[in-house]
Amino acid sequence: MLRWSIATVSMGGTLEAKLAAVARAGFRAVEIFENDLTFFSGKPRDVRARAEDLGLEIIGLQPMRDFEGMPEPLRSRNFDRAERKFDLMEELGTRFLGMCSSTSEDAAPDVERAAADLADLADRAAQRGFRLGYEALAWGRYVKDWMQAYELVCLADRPNLGVVLDSFHICVNKNPLAPLADIPASRIGLVQLSDAPGILMDPMSLSRHHRCFPGQGDHPVAEFLDAVMKTGYNGPVSLEAFNDQFRGAPAAQIARDGMRALQIAGETLDRTRVEQGLPALHIGADLPSASRIRGIEFVEFASASSGPDSFVDLLQGLGFVRVARHRSKDVDLYRQNGLNIVVNREQEGFAYSFQLLHGTSMCALGLRFDNPEAALERANALGAPTYFGRIGPGEALIPAVAGIENSLIYFMGERDGPRSNWDRDFVFETQEANGLLTTFDHFSNVLRRSEFLSWMTFYKSVLGLVNDPQVEVADPYGAFYSRVIRSPDGSVRIPLNIADGGSTAVSRFIDAFGGSGVQHIALETGDLFTFVEQAVARGVKFLDIPDNYYDDLSSRFDIEPALLARMRALDILYDRNKTGEFFQIYTATFENRFFFEVVERRGYDLFGAANTPVRLAAQVAEQERAGM
Amino acid sequence: MLRWSIATVSMGGTLEAKLAAVARAGFRAVEIFENDLTFFSGKPRDVRARAEDLGLEIIGLQPMRDFEGMPEPLRSRNFDRAERKFDLMEELGTRFLGMCSSTSEDAAPDVERAAADLADLADRAAQRGFRLGYEALAWGRYVKDWMQAYELVCLADRPNLGVVLDSFHICVNKNPLAPLADIPASRIGLVQLSDAPGILMDPMSLSRHHRCFPGQGDHPVAEFLDAVMKTGYNGPVSLEAFNDQFRGAPAAQIARDGMRALQIAGETLDRTRVEQGLPALHIGADLPSASRIRGIEFVEFASASSGPDSFVDLLQGLGFVRVARHRSKDVDLYRQNGLNIVVNREQEGFAYSFQLLHGTSMCALGLRFDNPEAALERANALGAPTYFGRIGPGEALIPAVAGIENSLIYFMGERDGPRSNWDRDFVFETQEANGLLTTFDHFSNVLRRSEFLSWMTFYKSVLGLVNDPQVEVADPYGAFYSRVIRSPDGSVRIPLNIADGGSTAVSRFIDAFGGSGVQHIALETGDLFTFVEQAVARGVKFLDIPDNYYDDLSSRFDIEPALLARMRALDILYDRNKTGEFFQIYTATFENRFFFEVVERRGYDLFGAANTPVRLAAQVAEQERAGM
Repeated sequence: MLRWSIATVSMGGTLEAKLAAVARAGFRAVEIFENDLTFFSGKPRDVRARAEDLGLEIIGLQPMRDFEGMPEPLRSRNFDRAERKFDLMEELGTRFLGMCSSTSEDAAPDVERAAADLADLADRAAQRGFRLGYEALAWGRYVKDWMQAYELVCLADRPNLGVVLDSFHICVNKNPLAPLADIPASRIGLVQLSDAPGILMDPMSLSRHHRCFPGQGDHPVAEFLDAVMKTGYNGPVSLEAFNDQFRGAPAAQIARDGMRALQIAGETLDRTRVEQGLPALHIGADLPSASRIRGIEFVEFASASSGPDSFVDLLQGLGFVRVARHRSKDVDLYRQNGLNIVVNREQEGFAYSFQLLHGTSMCALGLRFDNPEAALERANALGAPTYFGRIGPGEALIPAVAGIENSLIYFMGERDGPRSNWDRDFVFETQEANGLLTTFDHFSNVLRRSEFLSWMTFYKSVLGLVNDPQVEVADPYGAFYSRVIRSPDGSVRIPLNIADGGSTAVSRFIDAFGGSGVQHIALETGDLFTFVEQAVARGVKFLDIPDNYYDDLSSRFDIEPALLARMRALDILYDRNKTGEFFQIYTATFENRFFFEVVERRGYDLFGAANTPVRLAAQVAEQERAGM
Repeated sequence: MLRWSIATVSMGGTLEAKLAAVARAGFRAVEIFENDLTFFSGKPRDVRARAEDLGLEIIGLQPMRDFEGMPEPLRSRNFDRAERKFDLMEELGTRFLGMCSSTSEDAAPDVERAAADLADLADRAAQRGFRLGYEALAWGRYVKDWMQAYELVCLADRPNLGVVLDSFHICVNKNPLAPLADIPASRIGLVQLSDAPGILMDPMSLSRHHRCFPGQGDHPVAEFLDAVMKTGYNGPVSLEAFNDQFRGAPAAQIARDGMRALQIAGETLDRTRVEQGLPALHIGADLPSASRIRGIEFVEFASASSGPDSFVDLLQGLGFVRVARHRSKDVDLYRQNGLNIVVNREQEGFAYSFQLLHGTSMCALGLRFDNPEAALERANALGAPTYFGRIGPGEALIPAVAGIENSLIYFMGERDGPRSNWDRDFVFETQEANGLLTTFDHFSNVLRRSEFLSWMTFYKSVLGLVNDPQVEVADPYGAFYSRVIRSPDGSVRIPLNIADGGSTAVSRFIDAFGGSGVQHIALETGDLFTFVEQAVARGVKFLDIPDNYYDDLSSRFDIEPALLARMRALDILYDRNKTGEFFQIYTATFENRFFFEVVERRGYDLFGAANTPVRLAAQVAEQERAGM
């Protein structure tokens, strides 16, 4: 039966904790990596009992290394070694042993001999009812490639010996994937899945430290799975990711991420198959189908700030108008054209707690979906439970799921739909809220490196967003990485900025904010220059940009002197690419944590990353002036 | 004049702070990276004034990118851009502009045209008294290699245009180095130095994130410098290291490390030249010559522990005998054969402070040198000032330099020499201190990743140690890196273990210890089995090793069953390689931080890294049992 599995090596901690996490994430099958047993203080039969209690099938033990093609006396010793692994398998209650191609300098480059060794071992395994799988390591001494491993399996020709198809080794070798579909299913021992970032690194280092789950990297895992499933293979499909970050994270989180990654991989596979006229395979439970994001209904800020220079002063300076107050709570609605910002200054409840932890900060996001009920059902099926929140008392509860640092993401319908009456308990003072800002352009999430892949999988699976390639950004005190996640319609765009410790600005935000969070919101306008002039007149302070930036700009681009002078006077930054021009400005940082960006796009569809270093340096200077 | 320089891009922080750090480290010359100016809030002439105040010559501005071979109108714009850089140079007071080969898709693959562009720009530069240097980036669009850059420079044939020889691009391309010696010095614009780890990674990523200082990586920098200096080049030699860790560290530390790295590079260069019958060049001040380390005189522990299970109980359990007490202080001398361990339980002074910060810990190391005065003079010349300590009052002061976390490294002479009478104020109770332990085998230093290169340069320059290649070690919660540093005679060996954040055992040591430190000391014996039996009888608790380890061991090695059973009974670990066998055991962890290892070497010269994962897993289990 086709089923999802995960190898214990993909997680950190003790073997007992790994098994519990795997079961809780919804897996029914697990591969045991032998080191986990070696370090386990109990007996292998204790592992078997624990797995049975948890409803987990142990689908295999791995790996047997450096077996084939060895000279005597190493060859005989290898058979003895295998017998001891068979004993261990008996105790574990598993029937499958994973082997990988030899990396030993003692191995002979003799195909016939290697195949004979595999055949002999398969015969011994058969006597005990065991099956063997043989996998090509990309850095194997002679067998580096699935075709070579498959050739040995065919030469050995034993019914209980199959090739292990591991997506990592096949994709890292850039093997064509379509030929995999021609392998007879009976010759496949096991299918293993992982992804990896598209960086140039020797395959062994990449494999040992940077493997990740499908959809978290750049390998064509979907295409691999599609090809392999055309063979009619009907056994376990097992995640195997060696990753230092995974091993440093809680096993429960990694197991859940793995299951989410597999669920969307299975969904993609079945969609592709149906498009090709093939039957869906339904590996694991089917997901409720995705609902499209249609836009942002509102953004909610928790704030304790009041008086002059308060957060609402900043909002008003940016042209937002307080259009309504909540009937009974200290909750106001600010609006500008179609943009709603709720400011919650209640002294109890969710927003209050959030603000205690993080200061003035974005604590919730209301997203409009085509079908919010279906979107929520899907989120639940992906292991994201429903929380209910309400903007004010007496309101209908709005369902939400937890986003970064337990901020809330509300699932709402189209305006005027049943779940979109969140503002009915507001007393409107005006409906006039025009201004120059028209769109929420993007929200930057600042994340710890150890959380990045986890949230990427969350956004891609639970919210159905898609990702751009990763870029790196220089920082006055180091460097950080950034990857943009966006909804297919482009209405929600989230650059994920990844802090790698040290004293980069991104890391310092995490320290100041007390964790991950939204560091800034970018708003779009059709006329940035007029907007800035009005905002300055209303008292908004923008980030000081050094004069030298404009001198440098003038040497990089041909810009009208008058325009350049205006940018210099207003502290507006500039970028240009083949599609168009981009103007952007940043407010001074609020509470040393949060800022707004305002952008004007003239056909430009990126985020001005070229200006991030100057923005960061200016923010460092701002902090130093403030004596931070 | 030949002189050392450093590029501002090698450090983090503001430009003002970088210049101050560079001057303090003893540099008299600096290269300005243009981004530092762009982010600087003052005027370029303020930078000039600051540099002059600090006695720093600004040897150049860099880089001018994407200049040569561009079509119109980009070509004309590039000349305008260059004129603006010339204006900037005028304000900065520098005469040299560094250019790098174009990476632009718009550039034409036309050698004549590129050379003509360089010639034209050199002519314009000449009018203002400027010189140009042209450097091949390894990822340049057409010019990727110093030979191509040199060809363009020869074709352009202008007296104020030279090739920039950057060791990184040349070494990363694996160019032969000897041909560099044939370049006429007049064609060399600038020499730049950096090192890089020998990892397989695309050259641009390696360059942007992992460059380091000479001797910190694996590039043949000494050979490069030797070849280049044979040209008769007589200008600045400038460090240029792009490194996230450097930019995250204090600029003063990085500038000092850079100067140390250059000082030993210059020393190596001159030694090589003298061996070749060439005159020494004396770039920078000459270092006093190195003195050889002859061994370890004593190790000092600071401890507040007393009563049963105290640290001295552990020492006595390991066979150390209290041979002497200090005349007036709470300081005891424990001895076993030639091994001296001083235990300092004073309630004031250096050891007391150290113990407050770190708990029971090794606070000092007494090293014997051939010529301790010369060794100290050299340390001072390398920016490591002398501290004076004394083991007890009335003692001669013993000079020391600061090691990790300000532990002390005493510089002592041969036994019975003038600086080795540190024990004369001890009242000896016995001279009988025999036992099975014979040697300090090694000391493990646990370091934050951001400190690793800095301490490597310290050990190599100040103490004259040499390094082994880097290895990686799996950890139950991640992975860490390790590199062994040793004295040329092998008497001092220090594995540097590098924590990369997260929850690895190495990182947790840093948290528990309150910083970097010596996590364990390994002692050697000729008979580990008898030693362990005696120690157990004296009450020493050793780390529990899981039974499964021995099952696994028996499948990996052919070991006599009786020997295996004895190892299993005593918790002794085992390794074997082509040179011999290795037995090792760890004590239970003291105060959740420190432990001893005892090893028996039968022709084996490594450190049993294959057993480190099982040791770490066993220590995690030990912590969990203790409820940590």
